[in-house]
Order: sequence, then C-alpha cells, then structure tokens
Amino acid sequence: MEKKGISRAVINRLPRYYRYLGLLMDQGIDRISSSELSRRMNVTASQIRQDLNLFGGFGQQGYGYNVPHLHDEIGKILGLDKSYSMIVIGAGKLAQAISGYFGFEKRGFRIEAMFDRDPDKYGGVSLRGIQIHPLDQLEEYLKEHTIDIAVLAIPADSARMITPVLVEGGVRGIWNFAHTDLDVPENVTVQSVHLSESLMQLSYKINH
Amino acid sequence: MEKKGISRAVINRLPRYYRYLGLLMDQGIDRISSSELSRRMNVTASQIRQDLNLFGGFGQQGYGYNVPHLHDEIGKILGLDKSYSMIVIGAGKLAQAISGYFGFEKRGFRIEAMFDRDPDKYGGVSLRGIQIHPLDQLEEYLKEHTIDIAVLAIPADSARMITPVLVEGGVRGIWNFAHTDLDVPENVTVQSVHLSESLMQLSYKINH
Repeated sequence: MEKKGISRAVINRLPRYYRYLGLLMDQGIDRISSSELSRRMNVTASQIRQDLNLFGGFGQQGYGYNVPHLHDEIGKILGLDKSYSMIVIGAGKLAQAISGYFGFEKRGFRIEAMFDRDPDKYGGVSLRGIQIHPLDQLEEYLKEHTIDIAVLAIPADSARMITPVLVEGGVRGIWNFAHTDLDVPENVTVQSVHLSESLMQLSYKINH
Repeated sequence: MEKKGISRAVINRLPRYYRYLGLLMDQGIDRISSSELSRRMNVTASQIRQDLNLFGGFGQQGYGYNVPHLHDEIGKILGLDKSYSMIVIGAGKLAQAISGYFGFEKRGFRIEAMFDRDPDKYGGVSLRGIQIHPLDQLEEYLKEHTIDIAVLAIPADSARMITPVLVEGGVRGIWNFAHTDLDVPENVTVQSVHLSESLMQLSYKINH
C-alpha cells in the first residue's frame, strides 16, 4: 500500500487527514471530493490529491474519496491497526494528564504501569487506577514485560539517565516530554514534545 | 537585526539553538566554533552557519560564536526579551501541569488566571495559587485585563466555542492543546500542540 520514501512533511500531515476523516464519519459522510475536503481542511485540493495519491488510488474521478476506506488505510499506515503497550516514567501532573486521557487507549495505546521516584505519590495509583512503581524497579520490570513505548514525563537530567535503561529493556519508542535531546540507537525512535519550544514559537509569531 | 522572509523551518530550529546556548552558558562556556556546536547539536556545521548568518554576523572567523551574545540575540528574535500575560482555559490535569511549570514564568510568561466551568475544582486555586474563575466570567475578565496569550486545555468542542470570546477580548496568541483546528482572524496566532498526532507520528515511525 505504501510507497518508499514518503517525506516527513507528508507523514506529519497524515494524522490531520485521519482526524478530519474521523469527523466526517461521525457526521455520517461516506464520500467526499478533494475540493470539499480542501475547503474543510483549509489545504489546497492539489495538495490533498498529491498527498493521498502517494498511498495509491484511494480517490476516484467523479466519485471522490471513500471516507471510511481512506480513514482505515491511513490508520493502517500510521500503525493504528495495532496495539501498543506503554509505560509512563514520572507520576506528576503531566504524567497524570497523559495517563488520564482515554483517547489514547481507544486508539490502542495501553498504559500498563507508571514509575516514579516517589511511588506513593497520589496513594500509589494514578487517577485511572494504573499502579505507580518505584523507579528503581524499572529495569526489573522491563525484563518481565514487553513494552513498546515509554513516555518520559520527568526533568531533562533524569530523562537522559533513564534512557539507556529503556533502550536496554527493549522499548521501541520513546515519547519524550523532557526538555532535552536523547541519545538512542537507530532501532529506537524518539518523538519529542518540547512545550517550551512550542511556546517560544508562539511568542515569535506574536511579534512578527 | 532580522531579515525578512526567514523560513518556518529556521524559526522552528531557533528554540533548540537557544536551549543549547543556554546549556553552554550554564557550563561557563563563552565562545564556541560552529564545528563544536555542530557536534553537540548533531546538526551539520554548514547548517548552523547558514541558520545563524541569517541574523547577521554573529560568528567571527577563527573566533567562533560569542555564546552569551548569540543567546541574547536569539532570545530577542523569539520575543523572550518581553513579558506576556497569560490565562489558562481549563483547570484539569493538563492545565495544572502547564500552569505549574516554573520555567515558563522564568522566561516572562506569567499566568494570571485560570478559567473552568467548575471553578471550585481543586478548591478554587491551582497548585501554584493562581485563582480559578468561572468560565462564564471570561468575557468580563478580558474587558478589564490585557491578556497576550490564552492557553486552551479543554476539549475540542469547548475550544471552538471559546475561541471567538478570546479573539473579541483582544488575545494575540492562542496556545491550543485541544485536538481541533481553530478559526481566528489574521491578527491572532494559533500555536497547536496536538498530543494525539504526536503519538501517531511515533507509532508510524516505530513501524517503518
């Protein structure tokens, strides 16, 4: 289904297509032309055709796109047809916010445990009942459990210290909220959410 | 200091330069060559020279970059030499995480109030002592206070409903954590942090 060499820009746009197609499905809309999708998404129709044609023949002349089919195919490309076991490192407010969001679980991202230096924070369980383990049991835990994704919701120094433990423990992806870059081998993916940098981009744009 | 037409890609890289230069200052390093900065940041030296030369003559042949000066100049470009009044819409865990982060205030982003449908959440004040107001007082509040930035830490539907109130109330920038796009006039900037989309990008990369 997928061609090689899809640019990062296209990949970054796929979740937004996925979101809009999901909204259309919620509204009971089964097919849509590229021009109508263009109007709703505020992207040119030619961009939409170019992006979606990369994944091969979803659109048909005079018919438009089959919404559920396209939603499904983009979901598969994004890996949303699989499920992922996750742990959250940290149990502070950001960690609680992330682990409390039902939407992730609905998409197959299951949070199985949290880890914190202070495992008794909030009485030892997250608001959704996920157990908070002592951080020094992380290495042992990873020997006994297969974890796909670790979320880092801890300060930068701790994040750098914990990363080798995660890599050694077989984690395939790190969702990094710490304000630092991380050194990982090629077989591990880091996706960072740098909130401070996002806020700086906002202040730049306000001033220009 | 700044030339016209700086690409969005460069702007997106500026906060990372700013972060590394800050780390160098913390280590007492006053000047650095583009090749050494390149090694630390894992970016080519020619990219660094190209990016930083856009802002005019910071580097000197055989001397390298003056770290505090460059840090200062990039800070100014990013608008970090000014201060910003902020409000947070929502008082849930994500809102609390954002309003509890001291780093933002240190950079001049002052959170002055929070708003929630349930202002008694957490006893009416955030963990840092910021007052939580009833959401229906937002319009009135904005008549009496000049607010530069509003943070949206509420669900998508509410975010779309509140946006016109913020625009009408003179807010210049919206830092949007709701999983939706927002319609705003040209003089208002939206910077979105779509956590679900970031997680989907991670699952894409894990699978490819």
